[in-house]
Amino acid sequence: MTAARPIITVLCPRAEAETQDPDQLQRPEGLEPIEGLAEVRYTDAAGLGSALEGAQALFLWDFFSPAVQQAWPQADSLEWIHVAAAGVDTLMFEDLRRSEVTVTNAQGIFDRPIAEYVLAAIFAHAKDFAASLRHQQNRRWVHRETQQVQGTSALIIGTGAIGRETARLLRAVGILVTGAGRTAREQDPDFGTVVQSADLPSHIGGFDHIINAAPLTAQTTGLIGEQSLAAVRPGAHLINIGRGESVDEAALVQALQDGDLGRATLDVFAQEPLPTDSPLWTMDSVTISAHMSGDVLGWRTALAEQFVQNARRWLDGAELRNIVDTAKGYVPRH
Amino acid sequence: MTAARPIITVLCPRAEAETQDPDQLQRPEGLEPIEGLAEVRYTDAAGLGSALEGAQALFLWDFFSPAVQQAWPQADSLEWIHVAAAGVDTLMFEDLRRSEVTVTNAQGIFDRPIAEYVLAAIFAHAKDFAASLRHQQNRRWVHRETQQVQGTSALIIGTGAIGRETARLLRAVGILVTGAGRTAREQDPDFGTVVQSADLPSHIGGFDHIINAAPLTAQTTGLIGEQSLAAVRPGAHLINIGRGESVDEAALVQALQDGDLGRATLDVFAQEPLPTDSPLWTMDSVTISAHMSGDVLGWRTALAEQFVQNARRWLDGAELRNIVDTAKGYVPRH
Repeated sequence: MTAARPIITVLCPRAEAETQDPDQLQRPEGLEPIEGLAEVRYTDAAGLGSALEGAQALFLWDFFSPAVQQAWPQADSLEWIHVAAAGVDTLMFEDLRRSEVTVTNAQGIFDRPIAEYVLAAIFAHAKDFAASLRHQQNRRWVHRETQQVQGTSALIIGTGAIGRETARLLRAVGILVTGAGRTAREQDPDFGTVVQSADLPSHIGGFDHIINAAPLTAQTTGLIGEQSLAAVRPGAHLINIGRGESVDEAALVQALQDGDLGRATLDVFAQEPLPTDSPLWTMDSVTISAHMSGDVLGWRTALAEQFVQNARRWLDGAELRNIVDTAKGYVPRH
Repeated sequence: MTAARPIITVLCPRAEAETQDPDQLQRPEGLEPIEGLAEVRYTDAAGLGSALEGAQALFLWDFFSPAVQQAWPQADSLEWIHVAAAGVDTLMFEDLRRSEVTVTNAQGIFDRPIAEYVLAAIFAHAKDFAASLRHQQNRRWVHRETQQVQGTSALIIGTGAIGRETARLLRAVGILVTGAGRTAREQDPDFGTVVQSADLPSHIGGFDHIINAAPLTAQTTGLIGEQSLAAVRPGAHLINIGRGESVDEAALVQALQDGDLGRATLDVFAQEPLPTDSPLWTMDSVTISAHMSGDVLGWRTALAEQFVQNARRWLDGAELRNIVDTAKGYVPRH
C-alpha cells in the first residue's frame, strides 16, 4: 500500500442551474499537471460536502458560490482554499476566519484589466460616448464640447493591487491620483498621498473621478453613502469596480437625480444580476456592465494556471502566494 | 493724418443660417488686445468680399466656410490668413496656393484632445461599451469577455502634430505604435517605425487599431479604400479623426458588413452633417460623433487666444507660428 495522495476538491459551476447532468459541470481547463500529483475531485455545490471529506485543499473555481459555509462541517481535513477571484468576501464566514485554513486568491490576474476598465470609463464619460450613441440611434448630428482628461483628478478608494495598478495607469495619461485607505500617509509609491477612507466625506469633494477598488469588509460596507455623495464635486463621476455593497444604491440614485453626481459607471451591484426593477437601468447618467471589468479574453485560462502554480507550491511544501489575511479580508501589501 | 492702421477681417459664422440680423454673428471672444492695434472687421460669409477690400489679414473663425474662394477677387491687399482649425483643406483652392498669402492654422490646440478621443475610442471598443449600453437599454445582464488594450498594436496614419501626440498617449498605456506617412523611416522619436502611406494595403494587416490622423491632400483622399480594407486583420478597429474623404465610405460599409473590420469609430465624414440616409447610422459596429473629437471645453477660447498671439507677432513684424506649406496642405515638421 502506497502513501495516500493529497486530495484537492474543485468546486465548479454548472452551465445551467436546473440540470443535474454531471457532464454540465464547467471544469477549469489545464489542471492535468495537478491530476498526476493529487486526487482531484470535481464537484458542484450540491456535492461539495461529501467531496470535502478527507480533502486537504479546495479550489473555488465557482468563486462566488456560498456553498462552502454550508459544507463546512464536512471539511474535516481542509488546510487550504484557493479562490479564483480577487474579492473573497463571499467566503469570509466566521467559522472559516476562526479556523487554521489558509485562504489564497487570484490577486494579480485582474489588476491590469480592471485598471483598463476604469480608464475606459473615465474616457467614455469625458468624451460623452453614451450620449453620442443615443444620438446615433436617433440619427441626430449633435456637436458637443467634451472634457479633457489630462489634468483631472481621481480618488482611488482601496490601496490594494487593483487600486495600485489603476493609479499607475491613470497617472500615465496625466490624471492626478490620490488614494484612500485604512491609514492616511504620504509618499506612497503609487498614490503619493493616501487619505483615510473612514474620513471620506471630508475628502471626496476634491476629485473629478471617484473609484471604488476596495475589498468588501465591515469598514467598506456602505462606505459611499448619503454623506459622501452629498459632498462630491458637482458633475463628479463615480466608478465602482469593487463590490456593490460598498455603495448605498438608494443614496446613489438620489445623488444622480439631484444632479450632485454627473455619472456612475457600475460593474458591481448589491444584488447581481441587477434586478430588472432597479431604477439604475434606465438612468442616462448611469453606465452598467455585468460584473465583467476584469474578465478579458483568456481570464479563465489565467486563473486556472495561477491555481496550478500555487498548487505545485503547496504539494512541494513551499510557501503559498497571495495569502489572504482572513481578519482583514484581503491580501495585505508586503 | 495718422498712418492707416492695418485691417484684420474676421469671418464669423451665424447662429442660424437663415437670419440676417448682424447681432447673431458669432464673434470670437478675447480679441480686444488686437482691436486696439488694428481695425477689426467682423463679417459673415455674405459680407466677406467687401470686408476683405483693403484688409491685410483674415481670421477664419468660421473655419470650414468655403466663402474665401468666392471673395478672393476682392482680397486686394491680403497678406495673411489664420484658420481656427487644424485641417486647412477647405481653404486650399488653386488661386490661394499660387498666391503669396501666408496661411497659418490652429496646430497644437487639438493635439491632446484628439489623442484622448482616439484612446477613448480604443478603450470603448476593447471594453465593448456600446454593447453594454444596448444591453442596459433592454435591462439585460449579459456577461462578456472583453479585450485587454495593453500589448495591442496601432497604426497611426499621419505623422503631424495630432498623430504624434496620439502616438505618445497610446504608448503611455502600453499600445505598440507604428506610423504611416509620406516617407518610410526608422527611429522616429514618436513612432519608431514609419511605413509609407502609399503602400498602406501591404502594412495595414499588422494592426489592431488603424487611426487616420492625416490631413486631407491629394495623397490621402480615398487612402483607406477597398484595397486597404480588404487587407485588415479580422476584427480590426478603424478610427477616423482626420477627414471623411480619406475613407471610401461605401467600401467601409462593405468591410463592416463582411465582418473584415470589427468596428469603425468615425468623427468625420465625406459629407457633414452625415446624411440621415447613410447606412453608417444604424450599424452596431459603427460609432459616430459629430466632428467634435478635438472640441473640449474651452476650445473656442484657446483658438481665439492662439490667433491673438499670432496677430501680435504679425503686427510686430515677427515670424508667424504654424505656417502651412500650401503646396503640401499642412504645417511641415521642423
